[in-house]
Amino acid sequence: MVLAAAGITCVTSYAQVKEDFKPSSLNQPGKEYPMVNSEGRVRAQIPAPDATYVKLDIGGVKYDLVKDENGVWTGESAPQDEGFHYYQLNIDGASVPDPGSLYFYGASRWGSGVEIPAKDEDFYALKNVPHGQIREIYYYSKTNNAMRHCFVYTPAGYDQDLSKRYPVLYLQHGGGENEYGWPSQGKTAQIMDNLISEGKAKPFIIVMDNGAWTMSGPRQRPAEGETWPPKNWAEGFMNTLINDIIPMVDENFRTLADGKHRAMAGLSMGGMQTKAITLAKTDVFSYVGIFSGGSISVEESQNAAGFRENNKLVFVSFGSRELENRRPGFGGDPKEETKKLKESGINAYFYVSQDTAHEWQSWRRGLYQFAQLLFNN
Amino acid sequence: MVLAAAGITCVTSYAQVKEDFKPSSLNQPGKEYPMVNSEGRVRAQIPAPDATYVKLDIGGVKYDLVKDENGVWTGESAPQDEGFHYYQLNIDGASVPDPGSLYFYGASRWGSGVEIPAKDEDFYALKNVPHGQIREIYYYSKTNNAMRHCFVYTPAGYDQDLSKRYPVLYLQHGGGENEYGWPSQGKTAQIMDNLISEGKAKPFIIVMDNGAWTMSGPRQRPAEGETWPPKNWAEGFMNTLINDIIPMVDENFRTLADGKHRAMAGLSMGGMQTKAITLAKTDVFSYVGIFSGGSISVEESQNAAGFRENNKLVFVSFGSRELENRRPGFGGDPKEETKKLKESGINAYFYVSQDTAHEWQSWRRGLYQFAQLLFNN
Repeated sequence: MVLAAAGITCVTSYAQVKEDFKPSSLNQPGKEYPMVNSEGRVRAQIPAPDATYVKLDIGGVKYDLVKDENGVWTGESAPQDEGFHYYQLNIDGASVPDPGSLYFYGASRWGSGVEIPAKDEDFYALKNVPHGQIREIYYYSKTNNAMRHCFVYTPAGYDQDLSKRYPVLYLQHGGGENEYGWPSQGKTAQIMDNLISEGKAKPFIIVMDNGAWTMSGPRQRPAEGETWPPKNWAEGFMNTLINDIIPMVDENFRTLADGKHRAMAGLSMGGMQTKAITLAKTDVFSYVGIFSGGSISVEESQNAAGFRENNKLVFVSFGSRELENRRPGFGGDPKEETKKLKESGINAYFYVSQDTAHEWQSWRRGLYQFAQLLFNN
Repeated sequence: MVLAAAGITCVTSYAQVKEDFKPSSLNQPGKEYPMVNSEGRVRAQIPAPDATYVKLDIGGVKYDLVKDENGVWTGESAPQDEGFHYYQLNIDGASVPDPGSLYFYGASRWGSGVEIPAKDEDFYALKNVPHGQIREIYYYSKTNNAMRHCFVYTPAGYDQDLSKRYPVLYLQHGGGENEYGWPSQGKTAQIMDNLISEGKAKPFIIVMDNGAWTMSGPRQRPAEGETWPPKNWAEGFMNTLINDIIPMVDENFRTLADGKHRAMAGLSMGGMQTKAITLAKTDVFSYVGIFSGGSISVEESQNAAGFRENNKLVFVSFGSRELENRRPGFGGDPKEETKKLKESGINAYFYVSQDTAHEWQSWRRGLYQFAQLLFNN
């Protein structure tokens, strides 16, 4: 970025800034800052009369704010991608949330978020359509010997026709995130309410739990017959998912409680968990969604007993900037791998979110596409 | 407070601090600070290597933190009352949330909260008992011509016996707070789950909406036949409550949809709204709870047509420190007024929360007492 250099570069950039800033849609009630302009720049402002420096820390870059005669600091970032971004302020070396924004969990902390308006923001806008509910659930987990916490989306109409049963999607967040990610910055309820009201997706239940068992999650105990300790985070969360979460959901919600009506998806770490768990438990899930978390090869699909027989959908998505700057470790070319998987006879889809990176706008779009393919076959 | 003076007073206080600090139960996952000791002191800590000063701002007093050789600032407050407290940090003049705590809405902002363990904390502890759900609801309001947002608590068993219908409590927050207050720092679900599982309260539905219509709430339009503009905030919220919220709840939940099975309660501003609305709409509510928000006189009960005939309960509560330092404007002596109301034939109760002030521990206890009296007669 040009702004990584100091001084004069900043001034040059300043002169080019388009002065059409508006408050971010994720600001606290009545708060003007942070603001966002049509270039996607974020402008922060905070009174700090005795500070030596204040910086806006967003997208891995720190931008200097400038103090006015009243002790109020103001400054803006380079243009950001459309959609949601985590950020923070730095005041004389202290990294703190911006008191102007609402707060979101990511980067292993509750902190500030800002929303750059997107060309396609209509698909996750809050509209006057029939609304589902996000329900907050506490339940006891044998695997963890602890109370756990999740969110469950029930579609509009769930409380009206009490004879109807629904398929279920288990939807996981990424590393350093938690179960609040999808219902909050993920806009899950808005995406689903809009899709269902337009007849573009079947109504289904979505369970959003905490998969971060090795990081901030509680310690786990082995279930009877399980290997212990688990080989990795995917297997660790798998015990909880299979032995606690799914039975709790099937007991408390009107589900279609079989593998044919069960999907799992996740973003980044949650996508890797989805891959590992759906390959290991081929009788439990038949729909698979991996957002920015790898892909499934023909060989992997063949080595997982029952996978090819039971699977009804493998959906793989990435942000276009991720594919341009692919990080090592994902292995292979996910587009090519998914193409071959489709040629081998699996109902596979590959979706690219244009002009977005490893960030929530890619995953909102991933859910929007994936949801339309779910429980149709 | 002794600590309102500076310098040497602080040092004296320091020497007396009991070194049994533990992380607050409201800290972010994995965060050690803020900590709380058995005296109820709050100790904050934040790295701010280039700061000139850092203060802990709690209970209307700012306490100086002290910097160590690594640029980490640490310091503690005077003892606080048991229960929940809003607070913030001040770094070189910037008032910001503490990155160590979870965030709560109060004082017209999302900001830090800390929990002082209470002798009676068991009544709002999260336990392995049958759990209700907190449901997040978006709905269209004609009165506001806007989408609105509320939370609805449904008791354990709501989704099991689908023939059962429930009474409803409308439960309001205070000034500078919003609909997140009761489900979050108010511990509503934990209080109700525990009470119901012990057979101490009847199961009922609780609706927690945003009553702050003149402050952060959306602008309102008159409903047909309503006076406009409303005379005050109570009447303003009344239009929304009567014309939008109650019909929405009765349509979407299995309620007992009449005045005999409907309660309203609130804290502070929400208590004043409760008083004004239940005196004005005597056919809509028959149970009344006013927490730290005034009381109802015999004369007021007589002047409200239908109130005395329909009312089944008037519950009035305060923190003991509020009664000791009663603020002007509440008018009269609430204990004496409630005693006279009872003598006049109304089923009236007066409850005092010991050693607490105008704060959430008083209101958690108020709900705990009030809930046991609801829908019993």
